[in-house]
Amino acid sequence: MIRVNPERFLADLHRLRGFGAAGVGKGVVRPAYSEADIAARDWLAERMREAGLAPHVDPVGNLFGLAEGRSILLGSHSDSQPEGGWLDGALGVIAALEVARASVEVGGPPVSVVSFQDEEGRFGVTTGSAIWSGNLGLDEADRQTDRDGVTFAEARAGMAGRADGFVDPGRFSGFVEMHIEQGPWLYEAGEAVGVVTDIVGIRDMRITLDGEQNHAGTTPMHRRRDAFQGLSRFNALLNDRLRNVVTPQTVWTIGHVRLHPDAHSIVPGQAVFSMQWRDGCADRLRRMEAVIRETAAEVADEAGLSVSFGDMLGLEPMPMDDTLRDALAASAEAVAPGRWRRMQSGALHDATNVARLMPAAMLFVPSIDGISHAFAEDTDEADLATGLEVLAGAVGRP
Amino acid sequence: MIRVNPERFLADLHRLRGFGAAGVGKGVVRPAYSEADIAARDWLAERMREAGLAPHVDPVGNLFGLAEGRSILLGSHSDSQPEGGWLDGALGVIAALEVARASVEVGGPPVSVVSFQDEEGRFGVTTGSAIWSGNLGLDEADRQTDRDGVTFAEARAGMAGRADGFVDPGRFSGFVEMHIEQGPWLYEAGEAVGVVTDIVGIRDMRITLDGEQNHAGTTPMHRRRDAFQGLSRFNALLNDRLRNVVTPQTVWTIGHVRLHPDAHSIVPGQAVFSMQWRDGCADRLRRMEAVIRETAAEVADEAGLSVSFGDMLGLEPMPMDDTLRDALAASAEAVAPGRWRRMQSGALHDATNVARLMPAAMLFVPSIDGISHAFAEDTDEADLATGLEVLAGAVGRP
Repeated sequence: MIRVNPERFLADLHRLRGFGAAGVGKGVVRPAYSEADIAARDWLAERMREAGLAPHVDPVGNLFGLAEGRSILLGSHSDSQPEGGWLDGALGVIAALEVARASVEVGGPPVSVVSFQDEEGRFGVTTGSAIWSGNLGLDEADRQTDRDGVTFAEARAGMAGRADGFVDPGRFSGFVEMHIEQGPWLYEAGEAVGVVTDIVGIRDMRITLDGEQNHAGTTPMHRRRDAFQGLSRFNALLNDRLRNVVTPQTVWTIGHVRLHPDAHSIVPGQAVFSMQWRDGCADRLRRMEAVIRETAAEVADEAGLSVSFGDMLGLEPMPMDDTLRDALAASAEAVAPGRWRRMQSGALHDATNVARLMPAAMLFVPSIDGISHAFAEDTDEADLATGLEVLAGAVGRP
Repeated sequence: MIRVNPERFLADLHRLRGFGAAGVGKGVVRPAYSEADIAARDWLAERMREAGLAPHVDPVGNLFGLAEGRSILLGSHSDSQPEGGWLDGALGVIAALEVARASVEVGGPPVSVVSFQDEEGRFGVTTGSAIWSGNLGLDEADRQTDRDGVTFAEARAGMAGRADGFVDPGRFSGFVEMHIEQGPWLYEAGEAVGVVTDIVGIRDMRITLDGEQNHAGTTPMHRRRDAFQGLSRFNALLNDRLRNVVTPQTVWTIGHVRLHPDAHSIVPGQAVFSMQWRDGCADRLRRMEAVIRETAAEVADEAGLSVSFGDMLGLEPMPMDDTLRDALAASAEAVAPGRWRRMQSGALHDATNVARLMPAAMLFVPSIDGISHAFAEDTDEADLATGLEVLAGAVGRP
């Protein structure tokens, strides 16, 4: 049995928060390859070494702490959203570190640790684990750009001095990722732990509507080809039409909008926006894609605009491994009897990619008010400790 | 009679285009107080001096070329939109320069020239002439910020070394501004000149919708407070409701949108956008304002958002001076018989402000395809020359 130390775990979690601490409350700004992100990875590498693990940075900045021989792999990611909370992926990384450290102390099973790079998608979707798993080619990734036009190749060059080769996945027997739920369900039910049954699939692309840039005073309404009006019409029509396709669990989001030239006195000639949708069923994701493309084309046609679609990034819905899932469930029932549930993950995680390489599973703890990807993200520390013990219990089971 | 020189006029117009030449075709990027704008004003001051006028920069960067004694004032502005054409205000400034120069050559009536600053509204609406006319207080203007947070006070400090006091409006007998139409009507009718009867009024403000920033995968659709969805709903409702209030000449525009945090995977917590509307009737502008405020409040209420309204900038509808208008009409009929019309200006101009100080009038030449506030803006050079002759004819009339 692995005896974890919750105080040591929480102390490290708060120390990691110091890298990129910003905003209000326990907010963190630590996007992939930022100065704060790289400094945090250097600090983590040192903690791994202290825990008896061999730090290893791969060509895209994924940081492993390797146990000797074949081991289980635990972890998540330590990069954050442009405005993120202190837990998100950081929780799973520090929980992994504590379980690995505690396992060494009792001579338990070998445990390796990982912090994947760019899970938050500065350059795509779960970029670091997608590349490691073969889900995304390195050449293709290198051409991706962030919102400021920086390429992935340029960004990862910032860690090139630390990098060695890719780690052989064959040295790991399985992967378990602990994470905050990022939704409201555990918190509202007063439960401490969720054992993930499967992770929803995601599709994400940019859509561009091109109209005609013109003077906002002298261009009569009926002669305008206004790209923002096209976006607004597309959004309204899409909301109507998707109602016939979706389930209550399906979500879709326009989170990024850029108008050109973006001035008060000019009819917008161009609107670029993000379209993202998620569901547990691959077929439904495809049907939604068809509705999105048809609606955009129809709106463009009616409004005298042209439409173009960017590359579509995405990950398929992914069931978790039965054996690891059962081990987590048994541990949850032992640590928090009656205070856990099986549930789907509506958020995307590195585990989706790693599941292509080895058995993978996930464990959730509650998010207060369901808030995440925001400075206000938080979890009761008692729940963090419970999650840690469930994780250790699953790893340490005979 | 003032004999203008169209070749000299066009040559100077092309030289001015060299300051900030950018984009495609004859595009210009010369926003107020930019390096290119200040260099262009220095060049203009030198041309004024050569024409026998005394250059004078006032505290906000308005550049005058002063004739001795009491004179008529001609001109417009030489700053451009973030992406503008080569004519817009530059045309009226260079036409004024040519008429003043030609008038000196024939010992004609004294003609002064002006290039107002920030007509294009980096900091507000026709900022330079609004301050000179008393329509906008200097203290209030100094607090205005551009989209990057630079204050007007900071921007105008960049020209402080050239500045003298404000020019006494009492030295001018009247003001005539030549400008491109920026709409399609003259071009489509094959006419060369428009004599402006009145300038529409404008209202412009920023509206902010605040919702709740959250994870785009784990936040169910029915629990979202998505600020972009609020904006889209507001836009659709507003379009419906304004139909009952407006005329075919009325226009309204959402040209600027900023989401926060503006990321693919985050439900937008905030949308800031511009709302601008124009009409020839002050009462209609007020009724539109009421509809806009009510609709935004209603949408916010229904969607669990909060709404706040920024300062409302604006100018009242303004009739042009009868005597100057008649002089322009007589000159148009003499220079281009049957190829001119009387018309309203849907675009805002410095003349709106100057009309508070003295008799003011305006003259339009066609815009090819009605395009302006864009790199593609252009006018047939024959029409530019015709406009110049109509202007000179009106000024030189006994």
